[in-house]
Amino acid sequence: MSDPSALFAPERVAVVGASEERGSVGRAITTGLRDEFDGEVVPVNPNHETVLGQPCVDGLAEAEAVDLAVVVVPPAAVLDVVREAGETGVGSVVVITAGFAEAGGEGATRERELRAVAAEYDLNLVGPNSLGLISTPVGLNASFGPGDVLPGGFSFMSQSGAFVTAVIDRARDQGVGFRHIVSLGNEAVLDERDFVEAWGEGETSVILGYLEGIDDGQAFIETAREVSRETPIVLVKSGRTEAGARAASSHTGSIAGSDRAYEAGLDQAGVLRTETAEELFDVARALDGLPVPASGEVAVVTNAGGPGVMATDATDDSDLELASFADGTIDALRETLPETANVYNPVDVIGDAPAERFDKALEIVLDDPNVGTALVLAAPTNVLDFGALGERIVERRTASDLPIAACLMGGASMEPARERLNTAGMPTYFDPSRAIRSLEACWRYREVRDRKYVAPAEFDVDRERVREELERASRETNRVGVEAMELFDAYGIPTPDGEVVEEPAEAVGVAQDIDGEVVMKVVSPGIQHKSDIGGVRVGVPNEAVYDTYEDLVSRARNYQPDATILGVQVQETIDPDAGTETIVGMNRDPQFGPVVLFGLGGIFVEVLEDVSVRVAPVTEPEARSMIDELDAAPVLRGARGRDPIDETAVVETIQRLSQLVTEFPTILELDVNPLVATPEGCVAIDLAATIDPGEL
Amino acid sequence: MSDPSALFAPERVAVVGASEERGSVGRAITTGLRDEFDGEVVPVNPNHETVLGQPCVDGLAEAEAVDLAVVVVPPAAVLDVVREAGETGVGSVVVITAGFAEAGGEGATRERELRAVAAEYDLNLVGPNSLGLISTPVGLNASFGPGDVLPGGFSFMSQSGAFVTAVIDRARDQGVGFRHIVSLGNEAVLDERDFVEAWGEGETSVILGYLEGIDDGQAFIETAREVSRETPIVLVKSGRTEAGARAASSHTGSIAGSDRAYEAGLDQAGVLRTETAEELFDVARALDGLPVPASGEVAVVTNAGGPGVMATDATDDSDLELASFADGTIDALRETLPETANVYNPVDVIGDAPAERFDKALEIVLDDPNVGTALVLAAPTNVLDFGALGERIVERRTASDLPIAACLMGGASMEPARERLNTAGMPTYFDPSRAIRSLEACWRYREVRDRKYVAPAEFDVDRERVREELERASRETNRVGVEAMELFDAYGIPTPDGEVVEEPAEAVGVAQDIDGEVVMKVVSPGIQHKSDIGGVRVGVPNEAVYDTYEDLVSRARNYQPDATILGVQVQETIDPDAGTETIVGMNRDPQFGPVVLFGLGGIFVEVLEDVSVRVAPVTEPEARSMIDELDAAPVLRGARGRDPIDETAVVETIQRLSQLVTEFPTILELDVNPLVATPEGCVAIDLAATIDPGEL
Repeated sequence: MSDPSALFAPERVAVVGASEERGSVGRAITTGLRDEFDGEVVPVNPNHETVLGQPCVDGLAEAEAVDLAVVVVPPAAVLDVVREAGETGVGSVVVITAGFAEAGGEGATRERELRAVAAEYDLNLVGPNSLGLISTPVGLNASFGPGDVLPGGFSFMSQSGAFVTAVIDRARDQGVGFRHIVSLGNEAVLDERDFVEAWGEGETSVILGYLEGIDDGQAFIETAREVSRETPIVLVKSGRTEAGARAASSHTGSIAGSDRAYEAGLDQAGVLRTETAEELFDVARALDGLPVPASGEVAVVTNAGGPGVMATDATDDSDLELASFADGTIDALRETLPETANVYNPVDVIGDAPAERFDKALEIVLDDPNVGTALVLAAPTNVLDFGALGERIVERRTASDLPIAACLMGGASMEPARERLNTAGMPTYFDPSRAIRSLEACWRYREVRDRKYVAPAEFDVDRERVREELERASRETNRVGVEAMELFDAYGIPTPDGEVVEEPAEAVGVAQDIDGEVVMKVVSPGIQHKSDIGGVRVGVPNEAVYDTYEDLVSRARNYQPDATILGVQVQETIDPDAGTETIVGMNRDPQFGPVVLFGLGGIFVEVLEDVSVRVAPVTEPEARSMIDELDAAPVLRGARGRDPIDETAVVETIQRLSQLVTEFPTILELDVNPLVATPEGCVAIDLAATIDPGEL
Repeated sequence: MSDPSALFAPERVAVVGASEERGSVGRAITTGLRDEFDGEVVPVNPNHETVLGQPCVDGLAEAEAVDLAVVVVPPAAVLDVVREAGETGVGSVVVITAGFAEAGGEGATRERELRAVAAEYDLNLVGPNSLGLISTPVGLNASFGPGDVLPGGFSFMSQSGAFVTAVIDRARDQGVGFRHIVSLGNEAVLDERDFVEAWGEGETSVILGYLEGIDDGQAFIETAREVSRETPIVLVKSGRTEAGARAASSHTGSIAGSDRAYEAGLDQAGVLRTETAEELFDVARALDGLPVPASGEVAVVTNAGGPGVMATDATDDSDLELASFADGTIDALRETLPETANVYNPVDVIGDAPAERFDKALEIVLDDPNVGTALVLAAPTNVLDFGALGERIVERRTASDLPIAACLMGGASMEPARERLNTAGMPTYFDPSRAIRSLEACWRYREVRDRKYVAPAEFDVDRERVREELERASRETNRVGVEAMELFDAYGIPTPDGEVVEEPAEAVGVAQDIDGEVVMKVVSPGIQHKSDIGGVRVGVPNEAVYDTYEDLVSRARNYQPDATILGVQVQETIDPDAGTETIVGMNRDPQFGPVVLFGLGGIFVEVLEDVSVRVAPVTEPEARSMIDELDAAPVLRGARGRDPIDETAVVETIQRLSQLVTEFPTILELDVNPLVATPEGCVAIDLAATIDPGEL
């Protein structure tokens, strides 16, 4: 079995295509390796005796005990080189060469062959079309990006080579270090999931990534869910917006899945997602340098009222909140601080505060059981020794279990504090909102770490009945409607009393067994909009059932003479005012597979797009959180004097539907619209589904 | 009349309270002035002959021709000094001394006296409790914050002294310069509006500010609306959130108005509002260094696919959009760029692009009539000469009318480009999203600049009838309901047919003149929840009107024997399903006065908080935009197969209501709930108002 971590700890590295030619990638890589690598470098090039002073061999077969080959030969020669690597026992290969799938046509064929060769020899293969990889613990720079990467705890992967160069160039300026960096290239063999897995087992402190797409979303969720319990994963997934997804598609040639699916899938995987490059590193530095908060309640200690207000705004915008201090804390602050100080949160130690006063206030608030994390927020003053302030914060941080972020709202005058804190691995920020967002990420990571994974419920269902119903339905059409309500019965999803009958007399019999007036609908898969042709009748009293049957059928026949009419559905009347109309839907995402959606009916979904989404199978806590997430959740929970709906029934229905679509890949799309939720339960009134008979 | 611009161009400055004592404010200010000021400095202190080598006088009376006095004496001595300034013809005064309103009690009294003295002598007075002011054109640093302010076009005001020091300290590092800076302190005399006005008339390029509150919102809107046509105004208004507003209140002692009112008022004033300090300067630098876009359509030229996707995401998140290139542009790019380049937007000139290729692509896209602004987005590569890239961008910028933002996604290697661009006054960014947000601000400023101010409509109304009705109503209670529907009639707001009658026989007469069944409600200002006591009856046929009258009245009497019963309202039945229920409301904000709200009825306002808000008087375009702004606007515009409502009727009703509440300050709160909007018009069904009889 391949082991991607071997890529980052080779002892002998061959550069196949090593060169002395100025400006060539072969030269850049050979130079990078020669300068820093702890192990040995073997240039491979049949046209040279030496390359850059190193003895050169003709092929991998002649190079002994190589454990990593970096391939920079022309595209047509790559397959032979990789095969030779496999034959001579080189376990790991990085293909820098471009001209594969990204170039289309012949390149795509070449990439398929490359994948086959790698599989044959069980190679750890990065690329093709990769910028290379870097491993600071062994001084390995097998890339042609900028060098001089500082050592550190982060490991970073990227589907964009340019993003790798941008990050390396910037990180060096900011003193940010890395353990491993990999440019994923076309991911012919190893992909984002492999590196998440490998880094999760190693000494990486935070896994960072820039991704434009995830090939197998379900597998990624499984892997990342495990890893993220121990090692935070922070990703930029670009192509968030419709225009962005189009740009990513044209750039990588991949089919873009919906961002809603990514949003849900990454969250279910415990990944912290950021939108910008700056935020990616803000968050990573906080997760690396700080423990997780004890709670989401922040204490702010500042020497400046205005910035304190800004920090409060930022906190209110986030998932955090300002801590309410215990009485003892307020008393202690009052005793310690000058009279004009503000002893409530945000604590204002006022403009003439020396480092000691910050320190005392910090000591007091960190001791408060209501405080889960702290922000020290300093504006420049003449009386504050910033070196001392940095030192005090580091000491408090070390003595406490709580994270402390430092916002230094100034320039060069604060450098001594910045240096002291950064040396101790603690992040600093200029803008209070960036500091607060980073603490928020630490808090979100705590939630990820503490998350109990519950297996999806497996309800006792009647699969055979569903299979038969789908088979029957698919003989006729690939779109099914209310005639397939049996699917719900078979999976224990409540439906109104009633059934589909084929004769008017049967209709009367069914109606007599139902209390009150009934709803009747003509059942014909070929007729999409039944209401428009008068194919639906509500409030039918028993005595009118017979005639209504005949009328509905004849209307349908007139409207579409060739339509197959399966009969008429006779159904209990569900008073829409007795409950709230909701929608549970499912479609299949190209990356994540079945994705389940929940929302309130009508304009809430169609106009306001107020929906929550999860990748199936949906667990019980996930289904429950789908309700929490809606803006309109209070409508289900008793807003405006209504009785709250039975959430447990809805949560169960979401899970049962999730099980149905997971177990039957033949169901491509499915909408329960409406699912009427009442204080006593919920009931699925109508169904619309698309079926792929080939999957049965 | 006072002229705040005199503050920034004094010739002789007196420091009253000048001192040599180390660490004293008097010393800091004297030193700051002595070192840089173009004019003369006169230390004032009766206890010294000289201060820091300058000859010292005993009082302002002895200092000749002083035009600015900086006051740092103890609080108790301030009033005498300021009076002396007035008597000796010193026109401008900065009171640094604290211990006024912010300290409460005696301080508040002292501040009132200070204000009176300033008024008596018509002084330009900044402070008290100010950090001071800075004017780089004359080398004036009359503040005790950090010095070394670079000259530049920005003028900056702040209600937080700490924010001033933070900004000065940081700006110096980043090469950002200022024209004028003022720490507003307690604003006893001059406030944010005075400086907006003064700077609007001067050479300031962009007005920047940090505010926690605006005292007179209506006056601020009027001034800023004028100024912002010529000079962009960019403000952080903190205390945005509920917690932030509480923090600001406890910090400044001011009563926080609602942020909704600020949001609306600042927008109506043409102010660009930012949330963070970083964004404040990002936006200001873009507005200073770039022209306004010709349209919101952005062309992106990049050497890196991944960052191009991020820029696309950021664009889609903003009010901008990616430009669709004209065919000629695509052909020209195809001819010019290598085969593997992407000639659609974002244009990818690919990783091996030298500066010339960026330049050519930029030239082509800037020439496209569909392009309103451009972003150059470069990742580090070995082949790109960044000095040359910077030069080319500056040249293109100079030759074009369009703004070009430069995103340099790397570190030190890109410094030559950064330097060249910044020297030319052009902003640079690391993160594509910050670059795009800055271009978006330029685009929003274009909208502000081009805004045509329309005076609020003055409808022909019956003020006398309203006055009488309010007088009548206020004799009874300060809360009025449906009995005051005449207010609407008098202001031309449509109401259902019907009237309030005092006898059952009259009720019958009214009902007979109305088509169909009627709605009847008991009218008694003392009874709040009429429905709950059976005081409302719908669907009353003509023959039941008489008895219903008596029944309604007797129910009301039983429920509340002492209630005054004004009669019964007999009203046309409005079918709620024929239209959409909306709400128009008004309340009075402590800073902005009457604020008008619009939204859809029920959960849209109560649960989803989907409302739009404007400070009254509301103009026709503003009223129209209140509909546009709602998330649920499509519901009014024909979503889900409904006929669109008559927007013009709603827009007119909003304006008429705005006129009513503007003309009658006695109306403290007013809700039209519901205003039923139909395709044929709109009709106000119910009314709830609170009245302050003292204002009549």
